[in-house]
Amino acid sequence: MPVMPGKKVVVVGAGPVGSLAALYAACRGFEVEVYELRRDLRNADTTPLNFTKSINLALSERGINALRSAADDVLLDKILTQTIPMHGRMIHTRSATGALSQQTQLYDVHGSFLRSVDRAGLNDILLDHLDSLPNVTFFFQHKLTGADFSQKKAWFEVMNKSTPSSGRAREIEIDFDLLIGADGAHSATRFHMMKFARMNYHQEYIDCLWCEFRMPPDKSGDFAIHPNRLHIWPAGSFMFIALPNLDRSFVCTLFGPVGLFNKLEAGLDSDLVSMFDKHFPGVTTHIKPEDLIAQFKRNPHLPLVNLKCSPHHFGDSVVIVGDAANAMVPFYGQGMNAGLESVRVLFSKLDQAQTTAQGLANYTAERVTDAHAIADLAIANYTEMRSSVTSKFYKVRKYIEESLDKYLPSLGWATQYSRVSFSNMRYSQVIEKSQRQKLILTWALRATVLAGLYGGAVVLPYLWSRRSQTFLWRP
Amino acid sequence: MPVMPGKKVVVVGAGPVGSLAALYAACRGFEVEVYELRRDLRNADTTPLNFTKSINLALSERGINALRSAADDVLLDKILTQTIPMHGRMIHTRSATGALSQQTQLYDVHGSFLRSVDRAGLNDILLDHLDSLPNVTFFFQHKLTGADFSQKKAWFEVMNKSTPSSGRAREIEIDFDLLIGADGAHSATRFHMMKFARMNYHQEYIDCLWCEFRMPPDKSGDFAIHPNRLHIWPAGSFMFIALPNLDRSFVCTLFGPVGLFNKLEAGLDSDLVSMFDKHFPGVTTHIKPEDLIAQFKRNPHLPLVNLKCSPHHFGDSVVIVGDAANAMVPFYGQGMNAGLESVRVLFSKLDQAQTTAQGLANYTAERVTDAHAIADLAIANYTEMRSSVTSKFYKVRKYIEESLDKYLPSLGWATQYSRVSFSNMRYSQVIEKSQRQKLILTWALRATVLAGLYGGAVVLPYLWSRRSQTFLWRP
Repeated sequence: MPVMPGKKVVVVGAGPVGSLAALYAACRGFEVEVYELRRDLRNADTTPLNFTKSINLALSERGINALRSAADDVLLDKILTQTIPMHGRMIHTRSATGALSQQTQLYDVHGSFLRSVDRAGLNDILLDHLDSLPNVTFFFQHKLTGADFSQKKAWFEVMNKSTPSSGRAREIEIDFDLLIGADGAHSATRFHMMKFARMNYHQEYIDCLWCEFRMPPDKSGDFAIHPNRLHIWPAGSFMFIALPNLDRSFVCTLFGPVGLFNKLEAGLDSDLVSMFDKHFPGVTTHIKPEDLIAQFKRNPHLPLVNLKCSPHHFGDSVVIVGDAANAMVPFYGQGMNAGLESVRVLFSKLDQAQTTAQGLANYTAERVTDAHAIADLAIANYTEMRSSVTSKFYKVRKYIEESLDKYLPSLGWATQYSRVSFSNMRYSQVIEKSQRQKLILTWALRATVLAGLYGGAVVLPYLWSRRSQTFLWRP
Repeated sequence: MPVMPGKKVVVVGAGPVGSLAALYAACRGFEVEVYELRRDLRNADTTPLNFTKSINLALSERGINALRSAADDVLLDKILTQTIPMHGRMIHTRSATGALSQQTQLYDVHGSFLRSVDRAGLNDILLDHLDSLPNVTFFFQHKLTGADFSQKKAWFEVMNKSTPSSGRAREIEIDFDLLIGADGAHSATRFHMMKFARMNYHQEYIDCLWCEFRMPPDKSGDFAIHPNRLHIWPAGSFMFIALPNLDRSFVCTLFGPVGLFNKLEAGLDSDLVSMFDKHFPGVTTHIKPEDLIAQFKRNPHLPLVNLKCSPHHFGDSVVIVGDAANAMVPFYGQGMNAGLESVRVLFSKLDQAQTTAQGLANYTAERVTDAHAIADLAIANYTEMRSSVTSKFYKVRKYIEESLDKYLPSLGWATQYSRVSFSNMRYSQVIEKSQRQKLILTWALRATVLAGLYGGAVVLPYLWSRRSQTFLWRP
């Protein structure tokens, strides 16, 4: 794409993905305007993001790589020093004798790790950096109400500060050369784009709700549990997880079927506490029962959606990135990473193409496949966490794959999890490779079993026939 | 539902489905407010509806039944006298010798027929009638910009008459007890409802565009072709159809894959005419080639979408009907009929329930199944029209089913088409019954063939063995 100073890129949404899109556009010399529905997220009086978004996230290679391609070392350092390494999962269970058991599963044989990051903190750093750039302007409390993507015009309602969602609002009309929609799963950009593009669209809620809790530091002010782990309390169809924060607290999340939530909402306070004591051993030592109850009542119980659409652009005027194009369930920890990566892919396609229209078409052509792939992986992981993980065959395969990765790295063997979390391989390719590996391993295992049977069939009778002649083998 | 005068029902959308919803609500004593994005459709200067909607439609039993349940005889008569009966399809082909062939297939052995109706005409009659009711108020040029379905509040932008889609707009806030979204496939109601309800949603464009043409009356001012037929020119992957109008013209539609449209758009004018002459015999005798070309260039080339969602309501505050809940491809001629029927079903559920919330929940529980069923049937008919219709087995089954219906009506045997178009049986039940019939017939046919083979295997050798003894049978 020819760099065209003076050309205007409008970004809708000033979350981490929108901020990164603004940064990429600013680096290329565009005039960038960022429109955000809410107030400036850095103001203390702005509604906390945890109303509909999780507070902290696992940042992994794809997210970091997308930041790396736009940010200088200083900015990247500033972001990474605000994160906490998580080298593996810690699985909390109770043994048959009732004793607490904490088992660590390292993520990767090569020492790769995830980083727990505070969404708002990451957002602040990016917004501050954008503020320092001469060609970026912010418009907070501006709500996209309409767009004409043939004429490249958009309309925003300027939200009245005193009555944010009612009253006589003022509407402004703006022109743009390219509009980037980074306005989340309920994207207004996508809604208006659907009137222009012939978009295939699919969204489905899974039977799972989530609710956040805070586990405070212990009495000495330190982390209550191991800081460098992603903690999981598995319980079949539901689970509890915890990610560390810089202030030495943990943000925890309860995931469970709608039915469980309905039962807990209708039940007694003590039912909630005994459910925790039964299935999530140790938690009520760190979150006081009264806090647990209060937080369950105060914090929203939110749904999880799986969203796929195609195309991700229309003509040369609009494109969607992040959750707006590809919202997924959180069970692979890839939502924000995929969102940040989508910005990197978009601009690499724009950089390589002769025209914006061609660049956007190339972005859709590549990204839709990968977006669908990670959405499918995330759903599959949801199933896996609840069933496959306990199957013997699954465990054997996982062990063999990890050993191959560790001892024969030249084979290029790696687990799916490691490719998703610690590489930048296209998601669709990760699936292909994993399926090929799975096939090879399945046949290898079958061959081994058959060889064993065959060997037994041949060798045992032979040994049997010699049993009287030797003392080496005794039945 | 207890009738509650003074309670306010807001209907979004004043098309045929929205108008009927307003009529149902008005009959039950509600204060009804109807908000419509466009100007009053009855003004001559309002953009013609054919910009995105087809001009005329096939009204069948479900649509009429829904009107019948709300309208008195005078109103229903006024509507039906504005329709033209179509007793069957007329299939236009060219024989091997090149001669034109026009073959009539009656719709139904009992003489049932479809009615060609002008969408705008039907709409006008309903709007005029609503205007005469004391408890209905219209608000044209009001665009739904937001809604809070927990607080039962909605915001509408009052469109400036001089600059309908830009400038400083005025926004109003209204309260309601129940909001009914009848605002079409691109429903803003549904968009805002999706922020409250956990809605599974699926939309998919099929590889088919459509473009409308007008076939004028002949020189003597009469219908150019048979007025009481739905005319079809089949051509494999594409086709041309014509429905009669009261002014003795026909509204015709070309349906074809995107590739065909692209080719025609890029090709010469003469290519369009020769395509018509080759595949749609006789059409250019009635539409002059220069008119055909001009209309293809002037009229929009529009996509077709298949849309499913669930639920169709949220709490006790909002419900969607018609295309907003259930847009389908047009190949079963059921779009508007299903839309009108959805209003009838909605109010029957509200009438029977103790509370609005329960009524809406019952509506979703029943209607989602039927909405998905007719959307599937419409897609299946699209496939059937292009392939199955030519299969011998299909034709035999169709013939047997029609014969059973005609000669043994007490068996309750009927074709799927007849149940969809000429009954009020639930769409999902139609599918069930058809599948059962298909199974029975398939086995009956197989049994017949087997019996024939078996018979042949037993009888033929017997006859063969006797061939020298008798003159009755000669090989």
